[in-house]
Amino acid sequence: MSLLIALDAMGGDAAPAMVVDGAALALAADPELRFVLFGDEARLRPLLARHPGLRAVAEVVHTPDAVAADAKPSLALRQGRTSSMRLAIDAVKDGRVAAAVSAGNTGALMAMAKVVLRTLPGIDRPAICGVFPSRSRPVVILDLGANVACDAPTLVQFAVMGTVFARAILGIEQPTIGLLNVGTEELKGDDVVRAAAAMLKASPPPIRFGGFIEGTDLVEGSVDVVVTDGFTGNVALKIAEGVARMFRDSLKEAFTSSLRGRLGYLVAKPALVALRERFDPRRHNGAMFLGLNGVVVKSHGGTDALGFSHAIKVAADLVRQGTNARITEEMRAVRHALEPASRAAVS
Amino acid sequence: MSLLIALDAMGGDAAPAMVVDGAALALAADPELRFVLFGDEARLRPLLARHPGLRAVAEVVHTPDAVAADAKPSLALRQGRTSSMRLAIDAVKDGRVAAAVSAGNTGALMAMAKVVLRTLPGIDRPAICGVFPSRSRPVVILDLGANVACDAPTLVQFAVMGTVFARAILGIEQPTIGLLNVGTEELKGDDVVRAAAAMLKASPPPIRFGGFIEGTDLVEGSVDVVVTDGFTGNVALKIAEGVARMFRDSLKEAFTSSLRGRLGYLVAKPALVALRERFDPRRHNGAMFLGLNGVVVKSHGGTDALGFSHAIKVAADLVRQGTNARITEEMRAVRHALEPASRAAVS
Repeated sequence: MSLLIALDAMGGDAAPAMVVDGAALALAADPELRFVLFGDEARLRPLLARHPGLRAVAEVVHTPDAVAADAKPSLALRQGRTSSMRLAIDAVKDGRVAAAVSAGNTGALMAMAKVVLRTLPGIDRPAICGVFPSRSRPVVILDLGANVACDAPTLVQFAVMGTVFARAILGIEQPTIGLLNVGTEELKGDDVVRAAAAMLKASPPPIRFGGFIEGTDLVEGSVDVVVTDGFTGNVALKIAEGVARMFRDSLKEAFTSSLRGRLGYLVAKPALVALRERFDPRRHNGAMFLGLNGVVVKSHGGTDALGFSHAIKVAADLVRQGTNARITEEMRAVRHALEPASRAAVS
Repeated sequence: MSLLIALDAMGGDAAPAMVVDGAALALAADPELRFVLFGDEARLRPLLARHPGLRAVAEVVHTPDAVAADAKPSLALRQGRTSSMRLAIDAVKDGRVAAAVSAGNTGALMAMAKVVLRTLPGIDRPAICGVFPSRSRPVVILDLGANVACDAPTLVQFAVMGTVFARAILGIEQPTIGLLNVGTEELKGDDVVRAAAAMLKASPPPIRFGGFIEGTDLVEGSVDVVVTDGFTGNVALKIAEGVARMFRDSLKEAFTSSLRGRLGYLVAKPALVALRERFDPRRHNGAMFLGLNGVVVKSHGGTDALGFSHAIKVAADLVRQGTNARITEEMRAVRHALEPASRAAVS
C-alpha cells in the first residue's frame, strides 16, 4: 500500500540536493513510498529531473521560506508559518500525509511539532528518541534533548514509548528498560530517578524494568531501552558521537601518517571496512519525535542522501507499525496499573 | 624535599600487590617520595621484600580491616573506622602525611574524606575532578559524581577549583571554563546552568568563562575546564570510557579475526602503538577529590601498578603546588566580587 511522506526539502546542510537524492534512494528500496516535497520549486525541479522514477511519485509544493539552522525555536515558531518545515508538519496535522521528515533545525522542528500536532493521550511531553549502536545490540535511548528536566511520571511515559518503539521498529519481543543513573544500587541518584524506578517496578507488561544502569552499560548494551532526562541524554549522545569521531580520525591519521601505516591499512582493509560500516552513523540516522499526535522524524543536519533515506525508512516503519496507537494503548494500561499507587502516595 | 603519602594498600581489584608495585614505580620516578602503607602486614611484607628501595622508605601500619568494593558508603563510614582506607584519611587529617591515595570504593572514600577532613573555607561541597584526554588537549572535568544535584553557587565553586587545578597541575596559565549544556545558546538549559553562567560571567580573573559547551566540545577540547553536576559528569565519563573501550576491542577484533588483519596489524604496528598509548587510560588515572581540607586522590579500582603510580604522582603534585591554599584564596576573591550581585539579586 502506498505511503505518502512529507519532506522538508530545505532542511539540512546539503539540502535540497541531499533530500531529493535521499528520497530517490528510499524509493528504490521501498517502491510504495510517495512524497510531497516542500521547498523552493526552482531549485527542486532540476534535481528531480535527475530521478525520473522519483519525479513520477513526488509532488512539489513551492515555498520560498525556510527555517535557518541557527534560528531560535520561538522565533521560527512565530515567523516560520510558511516555511518548508512548518508546511511539512501542517500536512501531517491535516492528514494529507502519513509522516514528515526534516534534516533542519531540531529545536524549531520540535517546537512546531508540539504546537501543531500536540501530544498523544496520556503523554505530557514528547521525547526525542534515537537508536544507539551499542556493543551487543541496537539500544533505544530517550529523551535526547526535548526536555531538560523531567519528573518521574514523564520518565515512565518515556519508558512506555521506548518499549513500544523497540517492539514495533526493532522487533524486540520483550524489551528491558534501564534507567540511566550514576550507579546501579537502589539508593543511587536523585529523588526523580528513584521515584521513576519505583513506578516502573509497579508497571504491568510489556514494561520490563531492569533497574538502574550506568553510562558504560548503555555502551555495552545491557538493556534494550535506556530512559533518561533530555539534559543527560543529550550530553551522553554528543559525548558518544564525539569520542567515536575522535577515534575514527585518530585511526585514519595512524594509517596515513607513514608509509608503513598506509601499507598496513591496505593489507587489513577488508576487516577495517567492516568495522567502519558497523559504526557508520548514517546507518543509525533519524531521531524520532515520540509522543506526538503524528509521525515526525528528524534526520541529522549533516547527513548525506544515504543517511536521509534511512530517516525516511524509519518514518515509514513508524506509520506502518501503528506506533502511535500502540503507545496510546500501552500508556492507558500503565496509568491504570499505577493509579492505586499514585492514590496511596497522595493519601 | 621528601613527601610522605598514605596509601590504602587494600583498595583496588589487584590490591595489595598493585599498590606496592605502583609505589615502587612512583618512587623510581620521584625519589623524594616516602610512604605509609595501611593494610594487612602479613601480605604486605613479602610484597615489599621484592622492592628493597621502597621498603627502605615505606612504613607499614597493620590493619586487618578493609572496605569492600561494593560496601554502602554510609555503612563503610560507620563500620570502617579501622579500615585501611579510613586510617589513610585519618593520617591526612592528623597532619602525619601530606596526602592519601586509594583505589578502593569511591563512595566510601568520598564519604569518609568529607566527614574526616571537611571542606575548605568557601567551598560547600567537594567534587570529584578528572582529566579527560580530549582531541586537542587534556581537559579538566568536574564533578564526576560526588553531587548528583548542584545549585548555581556550587557550580561556581567547581569552576574555581577546576581553574586552580588546571593552572597548578596542568600548567595552563589562563584556563577557560565551559559549562556543560544541551546547546551553546544563552537560553539553553535549565535555571541552574543559566544562573551559574551569569555568576561566572561576573567573576573576576583568573575565572575566564567561555560560555556553554556541548558534549562534543568536551571531546574536541574547546575549553580547558568543564564544569557540570555530578550526575551528568558521571554519565559523560562512563559513556566516554565505554565507547573508547568498545572501539579498542572492535579494532583488536578486526586485527585478529583474519590472517590479512593480523598481517596488516604487524605492518602498521608502530603507528597503532602510538595511537594506543595516546588513549591509554592509565596515563590519565587519578580522580582528585577537590574542595577538601586535605589531599585525597582516588585511583581507578581496576588499574595496574603503572596506573596507580600516576595517581601517586598526581597526589604529590597537588601537595607541592599548594593547590588547596590557592583554591581558598581564589574562592575568597570570587565571593567578594559576586557579593554585590548576590545582594542585588535578593533586593
